[in-house]
Amino acid sequence: MIEIDAARLLADLGALRRFGAVGTGVVRPAFSAEDMAARRWLQARMQAAGLDATIDGVGNVLGRSRRSGPALLIGSHSDTQPTGGWLDGAMGVIHGLEIARSLAENPATAGLAVDVASWSDEEGTFAGFLGSRSFCGEDVAPLIAGAANADGKRLSDVLRETGLAGLPRGSLEKGRHVAYLETHIEQGGRLETAGKAIGIVTGIVGIREYRIDFHGARNHAGTTPMSIRRDAGAALIRFAHNLDEEFAGLADADTVWTIGRVALEPGALSVIPGTASLWLQFRDGDPARLRSMVHALEGLVAAHDREGRVMVRLTEHDLPSAPVAMDSGLQEHLVAAAERVAPRQWLRMPSGAGHDAQILAPHLPAAMLFVPSIGGLSHDSGEDTDPADIVLGCRVAATAVAAILRER
Amino acid sequence: MIEIDAARLLADLGALRRFGAVGTGVVRPAFSAEDMAARRWLQARMQAAGLDATIDGVGNVLGRSRRSGPALLIGSHSDTQPTGGWLDGAMGVIHGLEIARSLAENPATAGLAVDVASWSDEEGTFAGFLGSRSFCGEDVAPLIAGAANADGKRLSDVLRETGLAGLPRGSLEKGRHVAYLETHIEQGGRLETAGKAIGIVTGIVGIREYRIDFHGARNHAGTTPMSIRRDAGAALIRFAHNLDEEFAGLADADTVWTIGRVALEPGALSVIPGTASLWLQFRDGDPARLRSMVHALEGLVAAHDREGRVMVRLTEHDLPSAPVAMDSGLQEHLVAAAERVAPRQWLRMPSGAGHDAQILAPHLPAAMLFVPSIGGLSHDSGEDTDPADIVLGCRVAATAVAAILRER
Repeated sequence: MIEIDAARLLADLGALRRFGAVGTGVVRPAFSAEDMAARRWLQARMQAAGLDATIDGVGNVLGRSRRSGPALLIGSHSDTQPTGGWLDGAMGVIHGLEIARSLAENPATAGLAVDVASWSDEEGTFAGFLGSRSFCGEDVAPLIAGAANADGKRLSDVLRETGLAGLPRGSLEKGRHVAYLETHIEQGGRLETAGKAIGIVTGIVGIREYRIDFHGARNHAGTTPMSIRRDAGAALIRFAHNLDEEFAGLADADTVWTIGRVALEPGALSVIPGTASLWLQFRDGDPARLRSMVHALEGLVAAHDREGRVMVRLTEHDLPSAPVAMDSGLQEHLVAAAERVAPRQWLRMPSGAGHDAQILAPHLPAAMLFVPSIGGLSHDSGEDTDPADIVLGCRVAATAVAAILRER
Repeated sequence: MIEIDAARLLADLGALRRFGAVGTGVVRPAFSAEDMAARRWLQARMQAAGLDATIDGVGNVLGRSRRSGPALLIGSHSDTQPTGGWLDGAMGVIHGLEIARSLAENPATAGLAVDVASWSDEEGTFAGFLGSRSFCGEDVAPLIAGAANADGKRLSDVLRETGLAGLPRGSLEKGRHVAYLETHIEQGGRLETAGKAIGIVTGIVGIREYRIDFHGARNHAGTTPMSIRRDAGAALIRFAHNLDEEFAGLADADTVWTIGRVALEPGALSVIPGTASLWLQFRDGDPARLRSMVHALEGLVAAHDREGRVMVRLTEHDLPSAPVAMDSGLQEHLVAAAERVAPRQWLRMPSGAGHDAQILAPHLPAAMLFVPSIGGLSHDSGEDTDPADIVLGCRVAATAVAAILRER
């Protein structure tokens, strides 16, 4: 078991929280003044921990161990949602920092190389996963040229104004980086519900998003008999009900689907909706199940459209994201460390949310570890985790990191 | 059969259309400059037809026959929806004018008394049915004190600014007015679908409006397993589906129900809706069936609420309106006239929309006659009716009016 300095870990997390603090929450969107100040502070903390620390041309804070490697890369992000919590991303970054310095201070592990990263714009204020994509060698030039935030501010202008544009960009070092680890709050209620403290992530789910449009005929709700109506809203209700039944038959315990938005037009009590739309998102870790769900959805749209009264059309709302499996060898290391540090306090689970680990995973073995979110809350100022769980998660991760690096 | 002057009828309808004409539609909301100008024009047309015509203190244009009575009152309204069509209300008023002058010009019917009214604010720009309510002796003082239009303009100010406030208000004359007749476009597709030209209205439906709120828990759509969700949107879909099945079991061919508006909060694809609401309206001519539907709705709300995951609450959205039966004797007169003027071209039907006739009906025998709306369209600039049907409807009504008055 590897010891870490719990007080120092929590103090640094508390210090990072102050950049952009608003009540109990944090407002530190990518490339804001608060985000940039936090990144400079992080760089200094990495340097104090003996890492060679830089901020690169897309805003990544990269702390490189002076050990020759093989190196394990630990990362997450220090930017937040427009109104975010204090742990989403931040915890993983400070975990990385604490693990790097704890291992370096311990004579038994001082020879191991741990690099630490805080990726930029994970939350997609301008372009989601910008930092990790750049680091992995993806061509981010089109992203940078095209991206803007919700206020219309262009990413290319922001990179210039923050002085980042001219800086070199860090990248994955194939000979050096042997694995990637990211710790994160769960952002859901699964660990809490199960009464466990550690989640070992089996994979990051793939996401499909669709809009389904219903085109009927707008009419007077009093004078149009049911028999001649072409009610787009009623068609939507029937469709959504059937969809729920179909998906329930295809799902396993980890499959999720959500109708998060519905619109009926014109939205008046006395008017039969002429058009209606629903937005559907579904997630699963199994590419075959995702394909089955898409197939079922397409079949249902065709069947409801064939009924003829109301035209039904399916449109992709956003590009699909493929499920990404976490490395099984790394998972076994995390399991062994969890069983040692927190016996019977862990479980395996998918990540239902996206993380930088999904960008890294195609390039090197990657793994993730979760700690519980109180009440399952995230992307909210109420986001919190028991400090004991924050510390426990860091101990499990540090123990696994040492074991992984010793094996190389 | 009573003859009317088809060319004069259509010319007057066309003249009225020009007040507030916008494209093929009409924008003539109650007490607008266009509405007031149209009322003054109407008053002049009534005077030209030999009626004693006034505009009363709430804007009603009242044309009183100089015959002693018994008198039949024919009315409708000349105000429009914010963006309305050219026939909704207007046709009934001009029908009344044409019937009054045709009967007066015909020696065989010149002794019959027909009074004509254009009620104010039927469409509820400030206060729905203001004119007919006032005429029937309802206490409209609270309405006038409290009502304002969508821009916040107060009805009391408008009545003062238009010079109406100081004028005497007309009222039903018990000894004189023996029956009320209103002709109107159908505003639905029932006549067109059936291939008929005349609808004889059996009654005006009662209306119930409710909002049903679902209170669940907002959560991350990726990280919250289906098994622990409290998805307000999914609960709404299940409820709406069950409601449709329940109501279908209670309905007859004339019962209608509509979910015209739905809201999921916060309405994001990645967020499980924490709250959801639907707005439900249903209409039927049978008070017992309306009560059964309310009972079924209440039972369904209680049953879904008892499931416990998502709290379900029922709120009345608007005051209920009671169904109003049309006078059976007057209906028989309309049937006889229709069978004479347009054999086998008529059917009996309920009115699914509200009309001034429902305000008059508790006070004197009332009847309504419909003509087809092309494509069922109304409250829209595309609202239209075949001129042949406009003329036919007027002939049927005139024939019935003569028969009704001769019977007294």
